[in-house]
Amino acid sequence: MKVTLSALDTHESSFTPLVVIELAQDVKEETKEWLKNRIISKKKDGGAQLLFRPLLNKYEKETLENQNLYLVGASKIRLLLGAEAVGLVKECNDNTMRAFTYGTRHTFKGFDDDNDDFLTMAECQFIIKHELENLRARDEKMIPGYPQAKLYPGKSLLRRLLTSGIVIQVFPLHDNEALKKLEDSWYTRFTIKCQPTDSIRGYFGETIALYFGFLEYFTFALIPMAVIGLPYYLFVWEDYDKYVIFASFNLIWSTVILEVWKRGCASMTYRWGTLVMKRQFEEPRPGYHGVLGINPVTGREEPLYPSYKRQLRIYLVSLPFVCLCLYFSLFVMMIYFDMEAWALGLHESSGSEWTGILLYVPSIIYAIVIEIMNRLYRYAAEFLTSWENHRLESAYQNHLILKVLVFNFLNCFASLFYIAFVLRDMKLLRQSLATLLITSQILNQVVESLLPYWLQRKHHMQVKRKVQALKADIDATLYEQVVLEKEMGTYLGTFDDYLELFLQFGYVSLFSCVYPLAATFAVLNNLTEVNSDALKMCRVFKRPFAEPSASIGVWQLAFETMSVISVVTNCALIGMSPQVNALFPESKADLILIVVAVEHALLAFKFILAFAIPDKPRHIQMKLARLEFESLEALKQQCSVPFTHLWNLMPVALADTHSDCLAPTQQVKLATENLKEEWREGEKEKAP
Amino acid sequence: MKVTLSALDTHESSFTPLVVIELAQDVKEETKEWLKNRIISKKKDGGAQLLFRPLLNKYEKETLENQNLYLVGASKIRLLLGAEAVGLVKECNDNTMRAFTYGTRHTFKGFDDDNDDFLTMAECQFIIKHELENLRARDEKMIPGYPQAKLYPGKSLLRRLLTSGIVIQVFPLHDNEALKKLEDSWYTRFTIKCQPTDSIRGYFGETIALYFGFLEYFTFALIPMAVIGLPYYLFVWEDYDKYVIFASFNLIWSTVILEVWKRGCASMTYRWGTLVMKRQFEEPRPGYHGVLGINPVTGREEPLYPSYKRQLRIYLVSLPFVCLCLYFSLFVMMIYFDMEAWALGLHESSGSEWTGILLYVPSIIYAIVIEIMNRLYRYAAEFLTSWENHRLESAYQNHLILKVLVFNFLNCFASLFYIAFVLRDMKLLRQSLATLLITSQILNQVVESLLPYWLQRKHHMQVKRKVQALKADIDATLYEQVVLEKEMGTYLGTFDDYLELFLQFGYVSLFSCVYPLAATFAVLNNLTEVNSDALKMCRVFKRPFAEPSASIGVWQLAFETMSVISVVTNCALIGMSPQVNALFPESKADLILIVVAVEHALLAFKFILAFAIPDKPRHIQMKLARLEFESLEALKQQCSVPFTHLWNLMPVALADTHSDCLAPTQQVKLATENLKEEWREGEKEKAP
Repeated sequence: MKVTLSALDTHESSFTPLVVIELAQDVKEETKEWLKNRIISKKKDGGAQLLFRPLLNKYEKETLENQNLYLVGASKIRLLLGAEAVGLVKECNDNTMRAFTYGTRHTFKGFDDDNDDFLTMAECQFIIKHELENLRARDEKMIPGYPQAKLYPGKSLLRRLLTSGIVIQVFPLHDNEALKKLEDSWYTRFTIKCQPTDSIRGYFGETIALYFGFLEYFTFALIPMAVIGLPYYLFVWEDYDKYVIFASFNLIWSTVILEVWKRGCASMTYRWGTLVMKRQFEEPRPGYHGVLGINPVTGREEPLYPSYKRQLRIYLVSLPFVCLCLYFSLFVMMIYFDMEAWALGLHESSGSEWTGILLYVPSIIYAIVIEIMNRLYRYAAEFLTSWENHRLESAYQNHLILKVLVFNFLNCFASLFYIAFVLRDMKLLRQSLATLLITSQILNQVVESLLPYWLQRKHHMQVKRKVQALKADIDATLYEQVVLEKEMGTYLGTFDDYLELFLQFGYVSLFSCVYPLAATFAVLNNLTEVNSDALKMCRVFKRPFAEPSASIGVWQLAFETMSVISVVTNCALIGMSPQVNALFPESKADLILIVVAVEHALLAFKFILAFAIPDKPRHIQMKLARLEFESLEALKQQCSVPFTHLWNLMPVALADTHSDCLAPTQQVKLATENLKEEWREGEKEKAP
Repeated sequence: MKVTLSALDTHESSFTPLVVIELAQDVKEETKEWLKNRIISKKKDGGAQLLFRPLLNKYEKETLENQNLYLVGASKIRLLLGAEAVGLVKECNDNTMRAFTYGTRHTFKGFDDDNDDFLTMAECQFIIKHELENLRARDEKMIPGYPQAKLYPGKSLLRRLLTSGIVIQVFPLHDNEALKKLEDSWYTRFTIKCQPTDSIRGYFGETIALYFGFLEYFTFALIPMAVIGLPYYLFVWEDYDKYVIFASFNLIWSTVILEVWKRGCASMTYRWGTLVMKRQFEEPRPGYHGVLGINPVTGREEPLYPSYKRQLRIYLVSLPFVCLCLYFSLFVMMIYFDMEAWALGLHESSGSEWTGILLYVPSIIYAIVIEIMNRLYRYAAEFLTSWENHRLESAYQNHLILKVLVFNFLNCFASLFYIAFVLRDMKLLRQSLATLLITSQILNQVVESLLPYWLQRKHHMQVKRKVQALKADIDATLYEQVVLEKEMGTYLGTFDDYLELFLQFGYVSLFSCVYPLAATFAVLNNLTEVNSDALKMCRVFKRPFAEPSASIGVWQLAFETMSVISVVTNCALIGMSPQVNALFPESKADLILIVVAVEHALLAFKFILAFAIPDKPRHIQMKLARLEFESLEALKQQCSVPFTHLWNLMPVALADTHSDCLAPTQQVKLATENLKEEWREGEKEKAP
């Protein structure tokens, strides 16, 4: 994205803007100057040593309105040194994955001093973000010009600037050329093909590429279930033995696909280098607060918050609150069923047109209430989790995901469970399942991607017209791009996308033996979902910062839990089917015992299967073992470097003990003295 | 153990023998000479640089018979360098645990150049074993004098010597003084006190100390169960609600104790340094064979055996064989029950004295058959596992443990399960449980410790008398010790000890609600078991080599699995109790459904509990995080050392880009050239 700004001074000719910083409108000149200095000054002076420039020069500022946009870039060497600092792992010429270091850069595949392709743009932006976030206060007590924005040594400047509202946002820029290319290989041509995960990873980073990889894998994995489920619908198979076959296949299949995904994911992230990437020490998340103290791990000054207080908040406030919400959700569901029964009763007793319409009222009210509850709960969960004051962003995310997951699970499936196990109305279950699955899928795609895309386009046109009207005389490509992108929505992470897939997996697997067609619908949905999600990433939202990740994390656990629950529900459903009941006409107890035994056997088999399938493919295991072996050997080498002479020196004292007349303690002392001296000399040599 | 050999030449005066090597009687002089040279020669010449000496000098050899015993020792510096090579972790002066290096030895707690206490004797012996095992073939094609004992570069000499029968055994020596001290603090004074785990670890190493730590912890953890169980026996409580309370307490308790053990174990092994000790790259186990090739991980030449062949052997031969054995064991059990029924029938129809005796015959036959089956199966399992040709000792052990565990579980508990769930005779169950538990415990202690100890003492006396008769004129303390110890049995690892505890845990937890007294018996047994096991370690067996380990490994999993199974059995037992059945007089199906629901809830609660309790205590987590943080920081420092000047150099090219007129690509080139030169100079400086 070599956009040249012809309108700018010629001696600032070539500069690749990677990241945009938007300041508040009323930021003082003093602060701007200070920030600029900190960003461009040398590393040894506590700066980030990056390139920094306002979007507009002085002449333009007077005519255009956005005076608070700044561009950040970096020279190539700076980026390479940054890559070393963040611990990026790249492929070497001998096909191994190693942490990149500047000194050994020529041993890496595709590296060339004249070549810019070595680091992907997503990596460059990630490096710049990392460097900006690691710009730390030195002796400043506050941000110049803002006495209320307090600083202490080691505090991340960017985080304080963001929390005190001086910096409004920091976001990476799109690269229109690369984006066009990515879109072409991704979704604009409507053919069924594999997701270009490597290109997505190059443009958006590993976390998002993993989501699309998982979405694609999951869709393919559902196809066998869809194919087996289809004849059940076409030929109206209702025999219990066929359902048993389908359910058994389903259960084993869902275990296998989750295990195989782990392996595929490991292969993928090994290739990307994130599997072996050393996790950087995590900084406290922006909202974290506490009494200033010394972090026992890093030795740096930072806010501390006692862990027991957090535990108290979690177990005494959050947990009861979540339980209460769950109870309330069940309560609302019961009211819905009561209303439904009441409406049905009314309609049956006085079958007029009016009461016919009344039949739909409970469902509509319930759907609206569920939507409202979901949203309210989401806010409450975010508030509570942030109030729990987790130090790490990852811990915050995990607690939030857990809270939201449990509630969403109950909200989506409680009514189905009620219909299945209390009302025991399989026809109604099938009907509700189909309605819920299909409407939620269609709604999701419209609300999530198509609608925002349409709004986005409208806004886009407006801005374009405005820019053209205002400054028809200058080439304002970059200006237009930045102004457009800064107004785009922010992508809040893969949470909602995974949640959607998780619920879909629930619809498919929990009641699979009652409604085998669910998998078919899920496959059809996902084939378009891939495209609408891609559209959303490319055109609706601001480009997100790349985030390295080695797996889908807590979602793997969530999907596995769902597949365990589905064993229980499917066994129960089969046990309740009239065909199976007909086999045990006299004794229901025997039937239940057999079903329970089968269920336990299936669960045990599932755990054994999950245990027996290795989480990483053999070739990855070998490569990881090789890496570990090499690092151990290197450590030995390194340790023994100052002592290579030692091994030659020792025999004087040791091997000759046999014939030596000195008392051993004396010998030891002698040898030790020699060693000490050698060591001291070695130390001196090393010091400059 | 500064045993001076006054009978030896005076100039070999002080030598601490740590390890004994016993050669075969007919080993050629040429081979002995070669072995000696390899052991004492310098490291750079491919030697082990250890001290090596025959037990007897030439004058004695003529009069005494054991001419093939050799002593191995090492000087203090050699041991310290060895400690660095094996990656020993020790406590520093600032209370952190760090890998020991010779260069930084003065920063470690308790280190003093004049002091011998820094390394425990167990550690010294472990280091010597490691060095001996890492003595590798260079260009030798065979062991001198033994053309059939082939070598290839990199092959461990000691392993080849052992497999070709030239070396009969290698074992560490006891230290009689330290042993006496250990015994005093351990078991000779009969007071109830904590196990001296730190002293045991110092003398026997971490694996054995962990076993005794676990045994003690487990005993203490059983006490609450024993205390709660006692009144059930004393007051003959038979109400189902009391049993429900006991069983529920039991289930939660068993989950909690296993989780808490993990935490305690982590604290302990952190203190010992094994929790953070880097696992060394494992060598192939002695019996491993295959076609010579290049190990893809190490790049060394070694036998290779394709993994798919091993998988085929496991899944096509071992697995069916184990299943067959399990089936056979069940079959034998059924015959036993048939015989029992037949004998009872015979006795009832014609109640004579003869048939009264006949009643005991089936039990006796069954007990004998079980014992025979156990032994035969053990041999078969060892043969099969070794035939599976695992590369690593750990993999071999895991597969063996799994095989033996499954069979033993079935053999011990199948009859109880049959009585409980098929015969549904709770009285018989209680009776069988008590008989099995108590007899197995008494038998074990006698067969395992007391009998061997008695035999050992007898043998001891014989040897002593013999030595005194032969050489009353020389001080033969060391000679006597070595000759005595070489004849002692070899301790085969903690497998049987853990297995015993595992089965005991099964007796206590599987049917706890039927027989609450089991925990009391288990506690009583363990209080003496600790002492008899300690006696066994100190007096019956050869001293084993110390083995560092960070946890009880696969046994944790085994105990957890047992506690999951016990949830199922206890729920089923309570569901079957007449009191509970009386609550649901008309519908057995409802009863079963409720029991199953409770069981599922308990299992879910168990998993959540196990998930919610962190595996490591917070202070250990902090310390581990600190270590990781430091190693990351060190890595950064290290990487940037050759580039400290780089950061000062860069600004010329980077920070001035703003005002510089050069095209950026030119600038990059310029800076890169500078860097390259600097780098080359740096490299030159480092090279001597």
